[in-house]
Amino acid sequence: MSNHMDVQKENGYDAWLHYPRSSHAENRPAWCNVIVVTGGDEVLQTAANELQRGLTSMFGQQPKINDVPVDVPFIALGTFKDHPLVAERFSAEEQADVNAEGYRIRGTEMINPAQSASYDAIKGPYVTVAGQTAPGVLYGVFHLLRWLQGRLDGELPLQATSKSSESSDGPFLDVLSNPVNPIRMINHWDNMDGSVERGYAGASIFYENNALTKNMDRLRDYARLLASVGIQSLSINNVNVHQVETELITDKYLSDVARLAAIFRAYGIQIYLSINYASPMQLGGLTTADPLDPGVAEWWRAKAREVYAAVPDLGGFVVKADSENRPGPFSYGRHHADGANMLADALQPYGGRIIWRCFVYDCKQDWRDRKTDRARAAFDYFKPLDGLFRDNVILQIKNGPMDFQVREPVSPLFGALQATQVLLEFQITQEYTGQQRHLCYLVPQWKEVLDFDTYTQGKGSTIKRIVSGSLGSNGSPASPSSTKYTNYGIAAVTNIGADTNWTGHLLAQSNLYGYGRLAWDPELSADEIADEWVRLTFGGYRNRSHTGNSKHLVPAIKKMLLDSWNIYESYTAPLGVGWMVSPDHHYGPDVDGYEYSMWGTYHFADCRGIGVDRTTTTGTGYVGQYCSPQADIYESTETCPDELLLFFHHVPYTHVLHSGQTVIQHIYDTHFEGAERAANLRDTWVSLRDHLDEAIYAQVLERLEHQTEHAQEWRDRINTYFYRKSGIADQKNRPIY
Amino acid sequence: MSNHMDVQKENGYDAWLHYPRSSHAENRPAWCNVIVVTGGDEVLQTAANELQRGLTSMFGQQPKINDVPVDVPFIALGTFKDHPLVAERFSAEEQADVNAEGYRIRGTEMINPAQSASYDAIKGPYVTVAGQTAPGVLYGVFHLLRWLQGRLDGELPLQATSKSSESSDGPFLDVLSNPVNPIRMINHWDNMDGSVERGYAGASIFYENNALTKNMDRLRDYARLLASVGIQSLSINNVNVHQVETELITDKYLSDVARLAAIFRAYGIQIYLSINYASPMQLGGLTTADPLDPGVAEWWRAKAREVYAAVPDLGGFVVKADSENRPGPFSYGRHHADGANMLADALQPYGGRIIWRCFVYDCKQDWRDRKTDRARAAFDYFKPLDGLFRDNVILQIKNGPMDFQVREPVSPLFGALQATQVLLEFQITQEYTGQQRHLCYLVPQWKEVLDFDTYTQGKGSTIKRIVSGSLGSNGSPASPSSTKYTNYGIAAVTNIGADTNWTGHLLAQSNLYGYGRLAWDPELSADEIADEWVRLTFGGYRNRSHTGNSKHLVPAIKKMLLDSWNIYESYTAPLGVGWMVSPDHHYGPDVDGYEYSMWGTYHFADCRGIGVDRTTTTGTGYVGQYCSPQADIYESTETCPDELLLFFHHVPYTHVLHSGQTVIQHIYDTHFEGAERAANLRDTWVSLRDHLDEAIYAQVLERLEHQTEHAQEWRDRINTYFYRKSGIADQKNRPIY
Repeated sequence: MSNHMDVQKENGYDAWLHYPRSSHAENRPAWCNVIVVTGGDEVLQTAANELQRGLTSMFGQQPKINDVPVDVPFIALGTFKDHPLVAERFSAEEQADVNAEGYRIRGTEMINPAQSASYDAIKGPYVTVAGQTAPGVLYGVFHLLRWLQGRLDGELPLQATSKSSESSDGPFLDVLSNPVNPIRMINHWDNMDGSVERGYAGASIFYENNALTKNMDRLRDYARLLASVGIQSLSINNVNVHQVETELITDKYLSDVARLAAIFRAYGIQIYLSINYASPMQLGGLTTADPLDPGVAEWWRAKAREVYAAVPDLGGFVVKADSENRPGPFSYGRHHADGANMLADALQPYGGRIIWRCFVYDCKQDWRDRKTDRARAAFDYFKPLDGLFRDNVILQIKNGPMDFQVREPVSPLFGALQATQVLLEFQITQEYTGQQRHLCYLVPQWKEVLDFDTYTQGKGSTIKRIVSGSLGSNGSPASPSSTKYTNYGIAAVTNIGADTNWTGHLLAQSNLYGYGRLAWDPELSADEIADEWVRLTFGGYRNRSHTGNSKHLVPAIKKMLLDSWNIYESYTAPLGVGWMVSPDHHYGPDVDGYEYSMWGTYHFADCRGIGVDRTTTTGTGYVGQYCSPQADIYESTETCPDELLLFFHHVPYTHVLHSGQTVIQHIYDTHFEGAERAANLRDTWVSLRDHLDEAIYAQVLERLEHQTEHAQEWRDRINTYFYRKSGIADQKNRPIY
Repeated sequence: MSNHMDVQKENGYDAWLHYPRSSHAENRPAWCNVIVVTGGDEVLQTAANELQRGLTSMFGQQPKINDVPVDVPFIALGTFKDHPLVAERFSAEEQADVNAEGYRIRGTEMINPAQSASYDAIKGPYVTVAGQTAPGVLYGVFHLLRWLQGRLDGELPLQATSKSSESSDGPFLDVLSNPVNPIRMINHWDNMDGSVERGYAGASIFYENNALTKNMDRLRDYARLLASVGIQSLSINNVNVHQVETELITDKYLSDVARLAAIFRAYGIQIYLSINYASPMQLGGLTTADPLDPGVAEWWRAKAREVYAAVPDLGGFVVKADSENRPGPFSYGRHHADGANMLADALQPYGGRIIWRCFVYDCKQDWRDRKTDRARAAFDYFKPLDGLFRDNVILQIKNGPMDFQVREPVSPLFGALQATQVLLEFQITQEYTGQQRHLCYLVPQWKEVLDFDTYTQGKGSTIKRIVSGSLGSNGSPASPSSTKYTNYGIAAVTNIGADTNWTGHLLAQSNLYGYGRLAWDPELSADEIADEWVRLTFGGYRNRSHTGNSKHLVPAIKKMLLDSWNIYESYTAPLGVGWMVSPDHHYGPDVDGYEYSMWGTYHFADCRGIGVDRTTTTGTGYVGQYCSPQADIYESTETCPDELLLFFHHVPYTHVLHSGQTVIQHIYDTHFEGAERAANLRDTWVSLRDHLDEAIYAQVLERLEHQTEHAQEWRDRINTYFYRKSGIADQKNRPIY
């Protein structure tokens, strides 16, 4: 992010790495004058440079970077093992508490930080950022920058608030932070023609015209954003691998892939490639891609050798097979473990992983057939394969059984797989949640998923413990001091593109930020994450008053974010039934849009009722994929949560919810209220006008205006559909057409 | 159509100009040895060449073309005024009966044609094809070829059956035929990138990659097809004139346009260009396109000079203005007569015409608004302008008030405009009628339109009289002997493309054929036209048995054609309500596809009933645009024809039709029967297998198989939609989902 952005018209490009000039810059602590980092490690250099850049921006003066200690206060960066100055600040026990990518930060002790004059009294390492590895140090630096940025505007006290801080008598800053999830991944669905599948923020930043972009600076800026929130894995092309992208693993493009890898490597990020399962045929001229064919396995072994020669630290391959018309093992009567293991064996010599997606279902379903249930598919396909996968295979499972709807239950495959490594897949890009034209802060949704208790190994078998590998299974939980990755974690489809502000809707940056923070620490609350993001994003001169920025903005924008998912849900598909969107592009209401399609996504509304009976007694049996007590809860309309009622049950419109309202009246009420609340989001924004940079204000307002109008369209179409279908009038006689 | 096609695998490229070798070729009449044509007129030469080609193909021997009479029997071609040999065969009165583009054909008298041995007895002109103009002669030649082709397979007697033939004691062939409609036009919706809006037969034959096609042979073959059925006007680009096509009237493309004009000129066809109303701004750099701005008018005058310098016989401009987001006079607060007249004045010095489309309506309607009625729009906009248009302006009006649905009432604008020249617009391309994947022979639909009595000038004010200019108004009816065109007639959007067989579905060729024949003579029946087309298309070796081809095929294929519109209607949108198709591409069922859109195309189905109330008493008042008694008939459900009931009325599902059935049961019955009848079409075709060329059989079968399956999808979606909505069961308990 070039500095010239800061002095030009605000556009959101800097995102949360904005580092506004502190309104107390004159109080710049002396320890901010020098950064000491030793060794030539590239990521450590990145850490030092990032720290230098952030401090320069906040204080207006550039600190020096030194490779040896100096006789003035300074900041020390380094790993325990390579940097004695760093190591000596922490006990052996304290060091052992840090895991492969974690960090400790310690400010000097015994000096009252409120007395800034005495900052100079201590010579030597005044603040130390330490880790087992260079990436850990880099994450620590971003933590330190966040901490400084949040405090130097004069509103928050210049003291530690970290949960990890020790007693108030201890160091003024003392942080221990370990990432909970070993794999924290971003998936790109970018195509080499420059398009982005389900992208709502402009074209690809990676590719244009079937070639690598020439704008490498932007990729570096993207790496900064990702590393700043702890992302360390990145797949760089669409899981639907088309003709051109199939060639990414050939001579034609491997040098480009290597150039990309180099950019991200400097930020501690490993890249992955999505591959075409039929590559042996399409690239190799083989007549089969059968995973049990020795020629196929040999082709992949040779291919892996070639790929790893070009990119020795490639993370591995991401594979969407036998899904939505993609080729896969089913074509040869093989199961998915055959397919995944064959590829895993090819990558094993290089430490590569196979990330195998579980989004497998019959996408040519007959809508007339009420027995087949798409929701069952992933469990039905993959549960029987539990334990059959190699150690370097990870199954990537979408959070819900369908496809990133605004409301779904949690996929029952989590926990059901007890001897298989898994990756949870979220969708940051708002495919079904307003496409970055509607505000929808997704962290609360993700929190619900992570906190869901599957009971698969008794109470406490939460999704967050399952996906972090800490619940135990054949993969042992990550040891804090281990430097070895374990193959668990979270992946998410990114929401960024070539729009100047990255995400189209500026406020949608909060979802990328929040995803990274949550993948690092699932215990963070949606509120805490929103708080951080708003302070970082709207600090300083994005606030017109140029004074304490947070007082007006933070609570108001936080509330907008925190309310937004519920608002979006309330004016779209009701009570967990999902869909009701326009086919193909998935934007805007179309109640019957998918009702007579082959996609397995139905609501079965008729003149009497609505919903999908997925019970074991009278329905598709999907409920039986859950453990007790969840299965029992979902099985009965008595206990099924209102918000998932129509996902699990077909009920009459007159069915009374736990809320006391009938289903039909609930639909009317939530849609009228939802549209009103969408308008309130806009009104809140308008009320903040005087506190906001003008250009930032205008770009967000345009989105909120559209949302307000579009929410009314949703309201009227859904309400009218159900009024016409049920013939039941709104109790409050509001306009329905 | 290159002859090599004939000896290769059959593919349908020759269409109805197939000219199979006669199974009685040994009886080739001696008068077929020589064609005498005098004068260098290009179209006369075309006529001679076409005749030579047809005879060669049918008899296996090429006749000579002579420019002076010879002392053996021959065929004489020529105009009355330039060819004494021709003129002397007809009395002054007989000559006067022929209009500008009509023809007379006379075989010699007194020889019994059954006695082929005596054919040589007569020296001189044995058969004469005569007209006022060269195009008339050309049409006569195609008539003669049809006549020969229909008779030389041994099934039909070699004698005249023309209604115009004189007594059986007279000449063996004596035909008078005048085109009823002065303008018989084809509209292309081709874009220069090669796409065809609403095209279902491959890419454009005119353009590729924003340039004129290099395949001029194909264009010549297209000209032959058109001339053979009497088409003499052709607009060569989409009425939605995009960026590139806007430049067709500039230096950049005018030489290409001239090349196209030359090809069609040889077949008596005038070309027209669709223009962008905003050209003065987009091409001329003007700041306005206001029709009353003198600069704009001057720009168009200069542009007309330039265009007519390049193409002196250009027919004129076709204009879609203020319609579906196209620019137009409304932008400047002007009415459409202002816009059309300004352009007409620019073209007037060159004899050019402005064809101004009346497809003007609000395409951003609010679906919540039940008062606005798109069906009213053309009448509401244009009726007040009646009489204000220049003599070289023609208003082109779609057959119905909506948009080429399978069933609509006739546009009430016909007849309402009593002092304005009009062109009726049909759609040959099957946008809403199965997209050439379903069989839908449209001639019966067009016949109903043409025969509709508007009563606007009392009984007998039929559409066919209005659009041919023979009902009278400010344009006087075409005098039969006049060589001056009058500005009335019929236009239609073509169904052809670069598919080898022109129309995708081979049987859809019948619609292009039928359109031309009907535009020439609206009195021809759908049955007669089908009979002609089937005989011409399936003659000779398209029949595997190579014997009398017609016995098996003609009645069976004719029946398929004649039933097909009714079949298609029966399994799609019921009772005239229209639409219920997938948005955008308009293919396949989607009952609510347009229900909540801005296009003004609704059915208003709820749990009680369905239909659009367009009555004057309780509805939108659209019915009031018709004259009595039509208005009275439509106003009441008592008298409104069943097939248009839901177009004019909103009725309960339990409303009893004139057929005695309820609306809901009618929906179920017609959809079950329709799908069954679609399957019967396929079965009929299968039963003809032994009589058909294998490749022709296979290509048509593939379409009919798809139709069979797709008709079932229509059946199930429509029936399920209405069952779910009404809750009323099928009396016959057939499967509904």
